[in-house]
Amino acid sequence: MLYRTYLDLLSKAAVRVGLSRCNWETSRVGRGFLWVTPHVRAQSRKTMAKSKFEYVRNFEADDTCLQNCWVVVRLDGRNFHKFADQHGFRKPNDERALRLMTKCALTVMEELNDIVVAYGQSDEYSFVFKKQSNWFKRRASKFMSHVVSQFSSSFVFYWEAYFKDQALLFPPGFDGRVVLYPSNQNLRDYLSWRQADCHINNLYNTTFWALVQQGGLSNIEAEEKLKGTIAGDKNEILFLEFDINYNNEPEIYRKGTVLIWHKVEETIDKRVRTPDAPEGKNVVVKRTRNKVLPLHVDIIGDVFWEEHSEILAEDS
Amino acid sequence: MLYRTYLDLLSKAAVRVGLSRCNWETSRVGRGFLWVTPHVRAQSRKTMAKSKFEYVRNFEADDTCLQNCWVVVRLDGRNFHKFADQHGFRKPNDERALRLMTKCALTVMEELNDIVVAYGQSDEYSFVFKKQSNWFKRRASKFMSHVVSQFSSSFVFYWEAYFKDQALLFPPGFDGRVVLYPSNQNLRDYLSWRQADCHINNLYNTTFWALVQQGGLSNIEAEEKLKGTIAGDKNEILFLEFDINYNNEPEIYRKGTVLIWHKVEETIDKRVRTPDAPEGKNVVVKRTRNKVLPLHVDIIGDVFWEEHSEILAEDS
Amino acid sequence: MLYRTYLDLLSKAAVRVGLSRCNWETSRVGRGFLWVTPHVRAQSRKTMAKSKFEYVRNFEADDTCLQNCWVVVRLDGRNFHKFADQHGFRKPNDERALRLMTKCALTVMEELNDIVVAYGQSDEYSFVFKKQSNWFKRRASKFMSHVVSQFSSSFVFYWEAYFKDQALLFPPGFDGRVVLYPSNQNLRDYLSWRQADCHINNLYNTTFWALVQQGGLSNIEAEEKLKGTIAGDKNEILFLEFDINYNNEPEIYRKGTVLIWHKVEETIDKRVRTPDAPEGKNVVVKRTRNKVLPLHVDIIGDVFWEEHSEILAEDS
Amino acid sequence: MLYRTYLDLLSKAAVRVGLSRCNWETSRVGRGFLWVTPHVRAQSRKTMAKSKFEYVRNFEADDTCLQNCWVVVRLDGRNFHKFADQHGFRKPNDERALRLMTKCALTVMEELNDIVVAYGQSDEYSFVFKKQSNWFKRRASKFMSHVVSQFSSSFVFYWEAYFKDQALLFPPGFDGRVVLYPSNQNLRDYLSWRQADCHINNLYNTTFWALVQQGGLSNIEAEEKLKGTIAGDKNEILFLEFDINYNNEPEIYRKGTVLIWHKVEETIDKRVRTPDAPEGKNVVVKRTRNKVLPLHVDIIGDVFWEEHSEILAEDS
Repeated sequence: MLYRTYLDLLSKAAVRVGLSRCNWETSRVGRGFLWVTPHVRAQSRKTMAKSKFEYVRNFEADDTCLQNCWVVVRLDGRNFHKFADQHGFRKPNDERALRLMTKCALTVMEELNDIVVAYGQSDEYSFVFKKQSNWFKRRASKFMSHVVSQFSSSFVFYWEAYFKDQALLFPPGFDGRVVLYPSNQNLRDYLSWRQADCHINNLYNTTFWALVQQGGLSNIEAEEKLKGTIAGDKNEILFLEFDINYNNEPEIYRKGTVLIWHKVEETIDKRVRTPDAPEGKNVVVKRTRNKVLPLHVDIIGDVFWEEHSEILAEDS
Repeated sequence: MLYRTYLDLLSKAAVRVGLSRCNWETSRVGRGFLWVTPHVRAQSRKTMAKSKFEYVRNFEADDTCLQNCWVVVRLDGRNFHKFADQHGFRKPNDERALRLMTKCALTVMEELNDIVVAYGQSDEYSFVFKKQSNWFKRRASKFMSHVVSQFSSSFVFYWEAYFKDQALLFPPGFDGRVVLYPSNQNLRDYLSWRQADCHINNLYNTTFWALVQQGGLSNIEAEEKLKGTIAGDKNEILFLEFDINYNNEPEIYRKGTVLIWHKVEETIDKRVRTPDAPEGKNVVVKRTRNKVLPLHVDIIGDVFWEEHSEILAEDS
Repeated sequence: MLYRTYLDLLSKAAVRVGLSRCNWETSRVGRGFLWVTPHVRAQSRKTMAKSKFEYVRNFEADDTCLQNCWVVVRLDGRNFHKFADQHGFRKPNDERALRLMTKCALTVMEELNDIVVAYGQSDEYSFVFKKQSNWFKRRASKFMSHVVSQFSSSFVFYWEAYFKDQALLFPPGFDGRVVLYPSNQNLRDYLSWRQADCHINNLYNTTFWALVQQGGLSNIEAEEKLKGTIAGDKNEILFLEFDINYNNEPEIYRKGTVLIWHKVEETIDKRVRTPDAPEGKNVVVKRTRNKVLPLHVDIIGDVFWEEHSEILAEDS
Repeated sequence: MLYRTYLDLLSKAAVRVGLSRCNWETSRVGRGFLWVTPHVRAQSRKTMAKSKFEYVRNFEADDTCLQNCWVVVRLDGRNFHKFADQHGFRKPNDERALRLMTKCALTVMEELNDIVVAYGQSDEYSFVFKKQSNWFKRRASKFMSHVVSQFSSSFVFYWEAYFKDQALLFPPGFDGRVVLYPSNQNLRDYLSWRQADCHINNLYNTTFWALVQQGGLSNIEAEEKLKGTIAGDKNEILFLEFDINYNNEPEIYRKGTVLIWHKVEETIDKRVRTPDAPEGKNVVVKRTRNKVLPLHVDIIGDVFWEEHSEILAEDS
């Protein structure tokens, strides 16, 4: 290509990207070649073009979370009713799905910073960042998007390990939100709210599907029968009609899953050199590691919080 | 199990979940069986427990986006420098990665509502929701989390189709943010800003990796050589030292990718019954469908916006 | 007082303000006097105490208004129904009160920056800051509190000039709010909304008080009579029963008050010295000044905005 | 006026206010008079016009304060340095100004709801709304604007009572802000921060003006002399050079003013009729009233908060 033509192309390109006043001059540069140089060398024309647009950054709103509050991110599956049907989830609970959800939540806790406790049930999970967290300067969008993103990619990544015979048909979605809780009591009440929700839904679903799967009722008949019933009524139906003591149902279904950190002591073999063993020798070394522990226990009462008082302890 | 015992357990469970004043009475219900009924039947004890906690919903902040503004969600790969290294991305551009990113963005546009245009480059993508969108009542957290979630799950889901020989080692993360732009000019300047960024980075990277891969320089030497250079200098290095006319580099690298909607006319065969062909006959039917079209073109100048004037057209 | 005693007092005071660890030592300073010096001189103990508390500044939220939007501050009288009764306001309109409101609004426009137009009616006033305003970095609280404060203090300050025979019985209150409007049309619609409100209320009030004051109806009877009537009905009542052509009512009542800037040319006498008049001579000097002009005109139609096109003109 | 002409005017007026499609018809109404009626009577044309604009209300942002946090509104005088000079404020402290400020703050506490404590010094005042306040649904703009407005109007209203010989030259302005504090400790630290600020400034100002007024230094010389000094240095200057024991300075200057509620028992004479005194007799009645009490005491240490533990006590 002739060099002139190249210059012309460059020049046109510059115009095309919106550079209004480019002063070009020809001069001898480098190794004696005729070349183009703008008058102002200190700053690239492109950079000038970019800086002209950069004012748009001022439109970003500050979404810093109020200091000294618990930051809770809750995510929910998008259209998971349909998703469950399409992927053959078992009713009323699909243990594979619940364990996959927990695997994703565990990944979130390990990958992100400052999450002290998480609670999940059905197609939702809540993550609690510690009050004093300054991760990404407490920006709500960072908390929310990192949680939702890591959870979503993990859901696809680990799907196969939990759903061996069931292919994932399409990439699912989760929505997220951020809520602040100023006091420990507020935070506990939030988590209690989610666990009470788990209980209510699970009792309903357990009874509903017993009526349908074992009782032979249609979905509409089962719904009709449960209309207006209270907890006691459902317990009665389960116990009297299906010989199911609801309290013996698996705790993962009745309580959901709470994820906490716990210290584990590991012993590893390590080869070290000492004066008396210059060629090295094996030593057993103990070290403490933080690991995420899933529990299926009541978190409404005080017992859990007394046993794991470090969760609410003021961070120093 | 004796029924008494069961009642006791139930009662204890009620206490455990924080039900303070439960009045139990025994009465005959249903089929003549002795059963427990709380005084108030209208509302479940569990529901009462739940409603006691439900005040925590008032802590959710309203994050409605200002009306009549463009809503932009931008996402960025988390630690993608390292991710690229670990997954053997080609330098300066990995076409597989760019095409996977675009596949994910396309999925986002098709799955979510009201996105009129998207622009991506490197490990980032911006999605523009129309000014009049009322999707999820314009809640910022919904816009952001749905985009980020759908993108992240798609990234893992479609990985294999683009990276045939390279396994995905772990689930990646993306962060997101929401920015509002009141005027069309503001929106265009935002997109220009991102495309100018693409151009500057790509010119730098193309020159840097030419110096390293073809010129035999070390990373540090290449960085040193490029320090303080302007666009013209880099063009010169590429042209004179490596016989590369930057303007001939693939547009996907130089311009990034813009996704727009376009109407495609499809002709499908349809079997219909008519009076003269009661047994049915094949008819060719035309229909119009909206599809997402990826382009690698300049969006800083006016041409693109004149050719696709529907993007900025006031929604009716 | 003995110096020792003074030292003791100082020391106690230090403890009382929460200084935990003060190290005092005695040393000779200044003019050979025994004096106390803390170990660390570089920073005052008090300042240390203050800086210990200063973290509370991080709890202030950023309330920057979105760029490139009209910023509207509207204020409303607090309990002005009662206030009007207590201060003998004339019905249906008290011109003194309206003119006082406008005087306050005028003061706000002159004292604060960047207000391009204001509109008032009844006990409310709206102030429009220009799109590009960067006054106090566009902080909403600054816009709002300065407007409300200046208006409130002016209301008391200028009361006497408008209510000669009526003492102000207590200091009144106004509340305020900030609303953003992205487009010129949005802003015009906002102002149209307020003027339509003025019109509807004034037509109602004019008819209501005609029925009461001239028609001899009780308040309840008048209210009853007007229930369900439309504009035409009220016009008819006024015209047929009271010989009032509503359109001849003063425009300040029917339209409210719009405040705009206009240039006035002033000629002032100025004494200057020139070579041929070293003792000085009077010269007539012309100069242009911006003054606030109150108008009582329609701002819903296009005429006003065409005649005052500078209001909506993009600020340069 | 001919009736036709009146109709024409009305019609034009309708057009002018932006009513696009008005269908007028003539019909006999009321007392046999020819009159105009729009087709749709149920809704006024004006109301229709108004409702067309009412969409602008959706642009108002929700600014609800996070639940269960202390809401602090702080106001500051605008350009009070200049204001003080123009109104002959005494240096370093003008007691009239401080007492006027406190009178305004007291009015704010009595007029508005839910303020439990206030603290003021110099030209600023902070008002603390109780954690559980639901006044105006916790809208930040309401808290802020009502405080600032009531304070500003009170400042002018009560000026004369405190500045007998000094006329108020113009209406002053105050700005305001809202800050949330989740915990009691945060709130105490906020108030400590303001009182420490009071102390530092007052010690500086006391010394500065002693040097100028009694020591004969110029402002610049005094400033120079105080540069780099710590609290002890200033105490020394005051004591040795001017025989001033800073700790004996009035507490209103050194501590600022804290306003709290206290119960006062009032005994009033009340005339009551009883069977044995049908003509009525005087009875002494005791009743308890809440009044605002100004104190000039340390609020950094624990003593104040222990003595007034009701301030931080959880509201029931």
